[in-house]
Amino acid sequence: MSRVVKLAVIPGDGIGPEVIAEAEKALDAASQGSDVTFDKTRFSLGAGRYLETGDVLTDDDLASISQHDAILLGAVGGVPNDPRLAGANIERGLLLGLRFALDHYVNLRPSKLFPGVPGPLRDPGDVDFVVVREGTEGAYVGNGGVLRPGTDHEIANELGVNTAHGVRRVVEYAFDLAERRRGKLTLVHKTNVMVNAGRLWTRIVDEVARAHPAVTVDYMHIDAATIHLVDTPSRFDVIVTDNLFGDILTDLAGAITGGIGLAASGNLNPAGDFPSMFEPVHGSAPDIAGQQKADPTAAIGSIALLLDHLGLTEESVRVDRALEEDIAARDGRQRSTVEIGDAIVARLTA
Amino acid sequence: MSRVVKLAVIPGDGIGPEVIAEAEKALDAASQGSDVTFDKTRFSLGAGRYLETGDVLTDDDLASISQHDAILLGAVGGVPNDPRLAGANIERGLLLGLRFALDHYVNLRPSKLFPGVPGPLRDPGDVDFVVVREGTEGAYVGNGGVLRPGTDHEIANELGVNTAHGVRRVVEYAFDLAERRRGKLTLVHKTNVMVNAGRLWTRIVDEVARAHPAVTVDYMHIDAATIHLVDTPSRFDVIVTDNLFGDILTDLAGAITGGIGLAASGNLNPAGDFPSMFEPVHGSAPDIAGQQKADPTAAIGSIALLLDHLGLTEESVRVDRALEEDIAARDGRQRSTVEIGDAIVARLTA
Ligand SMILES: CC(C)[C@H](C(=O)O)[C@@H](O)C(=O)O
Ligand SMILES: CC(C)[C@H](C(=O)O)[C@@H](O)C(=O)O
Repeated sequence: MSRVVKLAVIPGDGIGPEVIAEAEKALDAASQGSDVTFDKTRFSLGAGRYLETGDVLTDDDLASISQHDAILLGAVGGVPNDPRLAGANIERGLLLGLRFALDHYVNLRPSKLFPGVPGPLRDPGDVDFVVVREGTEGAYVGNGGVLRPGTDHEIANELGVNTAHGVRRVVEYAFDLAERRRGKLTLVHKTNVMVNAGRLWTRIVDEVARAHPAVTVDYMHIDAATIHLVDTPSRFDVIVTDNLFGDILTDLAGAITGGIGLAASGNLNPAGDFPSMFEPVHGSAPDIAGQQKADPTAAIGSIALLLDHLGLTEESVRVDRALEEDIAARDGRQRSTVEIGDAIVARLTA
Repeated sequence: MSRVVKLAVIPGDGIGPEVIAEAEKALDAASQGSDVTFDKTRFSLGAGRYLETGDVLTDDDLASISQHDAILLGAVGGVPNDPRLAGANIERGLLLGLRFALDHYVNLRPSKLFPGVPGPLRDPGDVDFVVVREGTEGAYVGNGGVLRPGTDHEIANELGVNTAHGVRRVVEYAFDLAERRRGKLTLVHKTNVMVNAGRLWTRIVDEVARAHPAVTVDYMHIDAATIHLVDTPSRFDVIVTDNLFGDILTDLAGAITGGIGLAASGNLNPAGDFPSMFEPVHGSAPDIAGQQKADPTAAIGSIALLLDHLGLTEESVRVDRALEEDIAARDGRQRSTVEIGDAIVARLTA
């Protein structure tokens, strides 16, 4: 009995197409022989598309992407300070556009320090945690405004919105995940300053904790959390946090585990109302685009998250293992994007 | 011709009184023989005071503190989860209360990695930068609100407010500082997401830059800034950023330069309308209070910032030098708070 998964592929800009090419090879290799086939549709979206047509994400794009079972995205965004892009905000319009329209309320970002990876920390210990970042609320809602723009009396407001509905569903996901991992959950927030949102997050975590007695819960302010991430990152198992704090923590987490060239992520809609989206945490890096310099590991790691999301647990584990083996075998020699992809695929098909 | 400086001293809670005792010794030693004498008034404020009287910061407190020329603060805050403190938010009511009431619009936080200090980074390079954090706006204004609290339909809003007035004065301070240092200024924000505040900060930095052609300006998103802080912290000279991003960056900066036991800060009102306040970045650490385990270095470093603010440049440099010498001479032996203070004072008076 075979199953067809409709996959929307958005290679995007810069190094996006290069890393996605390798990710697709890994997906093909991993799913070979399983009962799943992937029916792929390619979407040309990003800064390049905007420069050609003036569109960032049309209703038609969104409607047709929504009809897929999952999305694989490379990276989007043009050359910084390109004057032709001054009027557009590709990240906001496209990346956040998709996350919000497709209700990606769980932004899942695992951080694992693989043996042999040279990181910036002297003595990191055993680093293996997951940040569960809320994806549809907080400071990302775009509900701010400006009064007297451009004047000496300008007031620029940014409204962060947090709802019981939005917080509960991501907190529940995080507790379930902690239960399947080492049973430890850390709420990161800034409850001593952002008291309204802080009280809501604290209340919901307390409530959900009651249904998960096996999970140990602690709390850390965002500022203290950055300290602990560089001092004792091994203490974390599952971190649950809001959209902005999660954005900050996961870049830092990527840095301490060997660079965001290795960091994969899933933008999940666990409710299943919309397709989930898988992407490397890194950006489009236009400065090295087209030069085969990008590391496709994060993109291939996103394939592992995609497979896991589709219930193809065994295939997901195989991709992760091939990645880890490739990383462990690195000897500092510079390899091209294709070479790294080929090496991982070779391990997958061995 | 001698000058009397009226200094309000707020030792506070936990390790606050211990580190402030050493800071006062250093202040006395450094100002000995100068034309300045310090007329000190002690204020008993903090969690301890709240538990006794129910007051956090009264109008009378504020009025009498305002009549001083400067403030020295240790640390405030009680034991986490003390049920008797559940109704109070000492940090918000007292620390932020003072920063806002006294219009401390520049929160100055130098980060320097001294030779011999064991930090978490493998290869930090030459780290010497200053974060100029806005202190009276942004997400700290307390202008949020809650709808349907405690229900499944709760909405918790946090409003971040940024004004041209508030941004310009702190940006001007940062440019002046960069001019006196290595001439490099980095704006840290999240302009691709918080577009209203982002546009304001960008515009003001662009405008002020025109009057400071000797300063090189660059921009970094907050998430990317955390990466660069652990990967290449030596690239930074002056960072200017908003209240929340500054809070996060300075704890991380403290961690990479040997721990926030060493990090000093000034809450400045450069306009001179209100007394500026000097405090270590660390908290009250009630778990080690009264045990002579706290490092008074950050508190003594705050004395150097205080002296500099009062125009006592030579005295300030002497305190900094004594601190650096003490740090360089550390051999890993555990010293008590008093021992460290005495050692620094001995170098000051040598
Ligand atoms: C590009 C940007 C809008 C995005 C974010 O802030 O979420 C990115 O930093 C990320 O973490 O995926
Ligand atoms: C205690 C807290 C309110 C404070 C802040 O967030 O500013 C502290 O973290 C600091 O950085 O001085």
